[in-house]
Amino acid sequence: MNSFGYRFKFTSFGESHGKAIGCVLDGVPAGIKIDENFIQEQMNKRKPGKNKYATSRKEDDNIEILSGTFEGFSTGTPISIIIYNTNQKSRDYTNVKDLFRPGHADFTYFHKYGIRDYKGGGRSSARETATRVAAGAIAQLMLKEIGISIQSGIYEINGIKAKELDFDYSLNSEIFALDKNIEEEQKQAILGAKVKHNSVGGVALINVKNCPVGLGEPIYFKLDAQIANAMMSINAVKAIEIGDGIKSSSLNAYENNDQINSKGFKSNSSGGILGGISNADDINIKVYFKATPSIFIKQDTVDIYNNEVNCELKGRHDPCVAIRGSVVAHAMMALVLADMILLNMSSKIENIKKIYK
Amino acid sequence: MNSFGYRFKFTSFGESHGKAIGCVLDGVPAGIKIDENFIQEQMNKRKPGKNKYATSRKEDDNIEILSGTFEGFSTGTPISIIIYNTNQKSRDYTNVKDLFRPGHADFTYFHKYGIRDYKGGGRSSARETATRVAAGAIAQLMLKEIGISIQSGIYEINGIKAKELDFDYSLNSEIFALDKNIEEEQKQAILGAKVKHNSVGGVALINVKNCPVGLGEPIYFKLDAQIANAMMSINAVKAIEIGDGIKSSSLNAYENNDQINSKGFKSNSSGGILGGISNADDINIKVYFKATPSIFIKQDTVDIYNNEVNCELKGRHDPCVAIRGSVVAHAMMALVLADMILLNMSSKIENIKKIYK
Amino acid sequence: MNSFGYRFKFTSFGESHGKAIGCVLDGVPAGIKIDENFIQEQMNKRKPGKNKYATSRKEDDNIEILSGTFEGFSTGTPISIIIYNTNQKSRDYTNVKDLFRPGHADFTYFHKYGIRDYKGGGRSSARETATRVAAGAIAQLMLKEIGISIQSGIYEINGIKAKELDFDYSLNSEIFALDKNIEEEQKQAILGAKVKHNSVGGVALINVKNCPVGLGEPIYFKLDAQIANAMMSINAVKAIEIGDGIKSSSLNAYENNDQINSKGFKSNSSGGILGGISNADDINIKVYFKATPSIFIKQDTVDIYNNEVNCELKGRHDPCVAIRGSVVAHAMMALVLADMILLNMSSKIENIKKIYK
Amino acid sequence: MNSFGYRFKFTSFGESHGKAIGCVLDGVPAGIKIDENFIQEQMNKRKPGKNKYATSRKEDDNIEILSGTFEGFSTGTPISIIIYNTNQKSRDYTNVKDLFRPGHADFTYFHKYGIRDYKGGGRSSARETATRVAAGAIAQLMLKEIGISIQSGIYEINGIKAKELDFDYSLNSEIFALDKNIEEEQKQAILGAKVKHNSVGGVALINVKNCPVGLGEPIYFKLDAQIANAMMSINAVKAIEIGDGIKSSSLNAYENNDQINSKGFKSNSSGGILGGISNADDINIKVYFKATPSIFIKQDTVDIYNNEVNCELKGRHDPCVAIRGSVVAHAMMALVLADMILLNMSSKIENIKKIYK
Repeated sequence: MNSFGYRFKFTSFGESHGKAIGCVLDGVPAGIKIDENFIQEQMNKRKPGKNKYATSRKEDDNIEILSGTFEGFSTGTPISIIIYNTNQKSRDYTNVKDLFRPGHADFTYFHKYGIRDYKGGGRSSARETATRVAAGAIAQLMLKEIGISIQSGIYEINGIKAKELDFDYSLNSEIFALDKNIEEEQKQAILGAKVKHNSVGGVALINVKNCPVGLGEPIYFKLDAQIANAMMSINAVKAIEIGDGIKSSSLNAYENNDQINSKGFKSNSSGGILGGISNADDINIKVYFKATPSIFIKQDTVDIYNNEVNCELKGRHDPCVAIRGSVVAHAMMALVLADMILLNMSSKIENIKKIYK
Repeated sequence: MNSFGYRFKFTSFGESHGKAIGCVLDGVPAGIKIDENFIQEQMNKRKPGKNKYATSRKEDDNIEILSGTFEGFSTGTPISIIIYNTNQKSRDYTNVKDLFRPGHADFTYFHKYGIRDYKGGGRSSARETATRVAAGAIAQLMLKEIGISIQSGIYEINGIKAKELDFDYSLNSEIFALDKNIEEEQKQAILGAKVKHNSVGGVALINVKNCPVGLGEPIYFKLDAQIANAMMSINAVKAIEIGDGIKSSSLNAYENNDQINSKGFKSNSSGGILGGISNADDINIKVYFKATPSIFIKQDTVDIYNNEVNCELKGRHDPCVAIRGSVVAHAMMALVLADMILLNMSSKIENIKKIYK
Repeated sequence: MNSFGYRFKFTSFGESHGKAIGCVLDGVPAGIKIDENFIQEQMNKRKPGKNKYATSRKEDDNIEILSGTFEGFSTGTPISIIIYNTNQKSRDYTNVKDLFRPGHADFTYFHKYGIRDYKGGGRSSARETATRVAAGAIAQLMLKEIGISIQSGIYEINGIKAKELDFDYSLNSEIFALDKNIEEEQKQAILGAKVKHNSVGGVALINVKNCPVGLGEPIYFKLDAQIANAMMSINAVKAIEIGDGIKSSSLNAYENNDQINSKGFKSNSSGGILGGISNADDINIKVYFKATPSIFIKQDTVDIYNNEVNCELKGRHDPCVAIRGSVVAHAMMALVLADMILLNMSSKIENIKKIYK
Repeated sequence: MNSFGYRFKFTSFGESHGKAIGCVLDGVPAGIKIDENFIQEQMNKRKPGKNKYATSRKEDDNIEILSGTFEGFSTGTPISIIIYNTNQKSRDYTNVKDLFRPGHADFTYFHKYGIRDYKGGGRSSARETATRVAAGAIAQLMLKEIGISIQSGIYEINGIKAKELDFDYSLNSEIFALDKNIEEEQKQAILGAKVKHNSVGGVALINVKNCPVGLGEPIYFKLDAQIANAMMSINAVKAIEIGDGIKSSSLNAYENNDQINSKGFKSNSSGGILGGISNADDINIKVYFKATPSIFIKQDTVDIYNNEVNCELKGRHDPCVAIRGSVVAHAMMALVLADMILLNMSSKIENIKKIYK
């Protein structure tokens, strides 16, 4: 259950304070140029410690490819990537060792597995998402070969919404802000929470351009359902919306339907997906992140013996996990699309004849 | 890709205007009393033609179990269920045969598969969801054996929200309304759209009580991610929210975290799921449905040759698909939980010893 | 666990004495002409009651396609097939109801599931294999579109081996004999056992011509491994051999290696598979069937309370299950190849560009 | 397709001449003591370079566990293991770079993936099987917790068969010989081939004791079918036999059926499996290995341009791959059984109640 994808399949391993994290990609077609610089660039977008809007924990997140390539190209065999944990300094965990941090997975992991891996969240830590970014980068290398591109950025922070969307701007924003006019206000919300030892939630927006029509495998591997699965699997994500999904539920059909003319769809409230299949219009997805639950304010909780205790955390945290989370959502979108590209190849017998005759 | 679930697995087949639809359930443990009346009751909640808030298409949706039971109990072998389509009257499809209905899957199915099955939506029709309800009923029979119960109802119609939630009331409401004080207003919204040949969107709410702690398989088969997958696979669903997910994204962590005392969680903004695993609190999920795209108002579209044409549908439709959709969402929740119950059994070696020693 | 295949996936259901058996095929590409006559012909090859070399139980095994086709062509949606059991006459099971027939699955099913479905073997009956033949026929329709053909026949009965192989001859032999000079001797072995209320084992041979190079997905979905899986899943099969596999284990490499020249392989001890991937030479597989365990000779056994009792069966049986089993093995080979054809499509990025550019 | 198992799932990666090979185990229950010494002992049984009956290539095959354990116990999260390749000395591959070695996967990999990874076989090398042994050792640690044990040894070399089976003796034999009286003859066959630059085939025998009744998931995940799949996926394996499978095909049912009395089965021609489910008797499996195809005798072949050339290999090889292969087969048996143990847990509703009530 630590694998994602059906044909372009990604398996991750590793805990936040173990020796290393890593992943194995299975199903990557042979012959793709594996540009390690591009992968590292994606890693750097997510890596912690870059600026005051992210946790100050430092991790270089240098990737090492152990298998699956030959002379710089994918070979069709599993590509494995390892990322050593360089910042596992031996902290004093005495004050959190036996207690459940509110909003965290401590409680549920303990009860499920009978083990309290108290070091920094273990497997439930967002550290695992670094491997998704590495895998997603390889997926993007494949998608580029057929012209599909993905963009992402921050739409909303602590209730403050973007009004205009500029994906090029977001690339250079410290918080990946999509609206430069709103960016400063969003930054202040983050820093305002941080100074109070608190954190804030936010919303990321993912956009796909040049997606071919036909991606998505009905009925139980629909494109939107698999995107929802992918996004909801990211730490702190609590809601997911395709196109104008939430607004759509309050509209009538005449307002909401995307009418069509010979040039294509006249509007895009569907977010590029109809009946679970891409319609070649832009795919637009909103991903809703709660605030990082690790805060340095006193909270009520219990320990593993169900004694009521105060939770008083110390250390480092992300004041707004949506920012680095948006990079993970971007990667997950790439992984979903790469998988769907492979799956859709056999939709028609004429495609099969193209390969075998 | 027409199967759902990993261990409690459900495969569906059938088109809206074919001979029959049906499903196969694989992985149902032996020894469960298969109460056919209960299954039929669930079918009746979803079946069309019951009142003026649903399509007037009549289908009895009588289930027939073909295999997998012996003397009334499950045997551990695949349970197959068939539902004959009784209302496939030979209509005149001339006016829609070659065109793509806005908001429908016609466009995407045609481009993916190269075939235009113009009869009532074919596989993309919500008719398929009848099989989910049958399968979900069997999942509920298993969940009942260990005390888990699911409730559901309509939270919002066309922007009109419930203020109080009464799942018992919804059972007897024609529109499964959760708030009896709002019900009439919601009904009027539906009928108001219907009279204008239009339809409206809505939001269903699903609640689970008595769920054991520990359900959900991190990292890529989390409980919330699999719920999102399940719900988004339902026709017309465009967004999904766990607990207070959307609001959570605008809050800070101190507001949003569910603190804990020795009796359990002091609040439930998480919707009963932490780190992708159930925490034994109530699970709460909102499912956002767009309005049924089939409306009888003239719309712009193209035909399969990309000629611009008017789309002028005739016939029957659901003025608010969220209502019957809520029954499907209820069933999908049962299917997810049944699967997670089986998967979680092997989380610890002590569980394995309970079975084999 | 009642599904077979990864992309061309087949799910079966049904018990020998229930209402019906059937299957669902998922992943069949759209646009294949679904020739129902061909499917029925394959069914007829396997159906019981045809001659004195098979059980006298009569079943017409008429297939009915319920979904997945439109105007005679596959649509890309699940193809479901149902076969009603017409010969479930109410027998008197008193003498076998509680006992375990030697060599049968009664003992293991009872202990696994806690239920004794005593009517004719239930799910463990070879009746289930009828659905495999239907599914395999559809797989063959796909394989034919790209020129792959499969042949099969009986190589050995009760130790009596074919010396020459004539797949055309076997088509018209009552026992699918590959060697017309040996056929009579093989027939006599069967009838000799039958008259003593006994049965005999045998070996089927499956041959594939015109298989493209490249089928098989290393390391854990190799072509030969998946063939072994497929064949061993057939009732009464106890061994499986690829090419000259058994002899190969007693040879040295110089004797066993297939050397190569510019026209191809100079010999074919490998059976057309190297490293788990087809090499474009003929695929040859031997499938070893034990004798039908249902015999009408007194045997020692126990009942479900572990009391020692005599097993004295009455009724009808197959005096040599390998004969009808060879038709099932033929079908399973088709299912494996169809799956591998789809899976191999994405082996190289250039294939992906052929579909999307 | 580089994963094996459904619930106890193992994914491997790595090429023979890359930086490292490794694996990820997913689904290992929490709370198992992970005895690294035991794992290393298993590795040492398979590792090359130990004596004159194996290749002289030296690899220490030291395992390093990167994740999935906490304070010496499994945590329920993925266990990843890495094994660095220490002996990848830069050889001169000029004479083999472009040609296909007879009996090897060079030909099929090249045509499937379009790439000639000429360094020592790449992914198709038996080097990959080291990871299976590591994973199988962890499976064995789980099986031991419920008392299941596996034994293995060499039954036949170059046609020379064991007459008596002594699994304890085989533990200390350089060739894992089961019959000490035949061992010397088998050794001479190996050395006789080796001196002629040739190699020989052989047969391994795997035995399981104390297997609970009920393992195996019919119809398409039967215990014997999955064993066949597992064994056939091992390099050089060309046939697989359950119990007395090959002999069974030449017998009649009265000879072959295992009759039953109150103490159990009176014989075991079935090899401990009936209807694809374990019957609690010993499981016995024979695995047929061809001779290592790498030999140092001149052979005919072609290069990647289809020019006819001589293949004249130099270097090191295993004169009988069955010996080290038997360790791999042992490991694969453990992986199959561990998976089946988890899968069988949900066969009956009473089992589910044992966990949840």
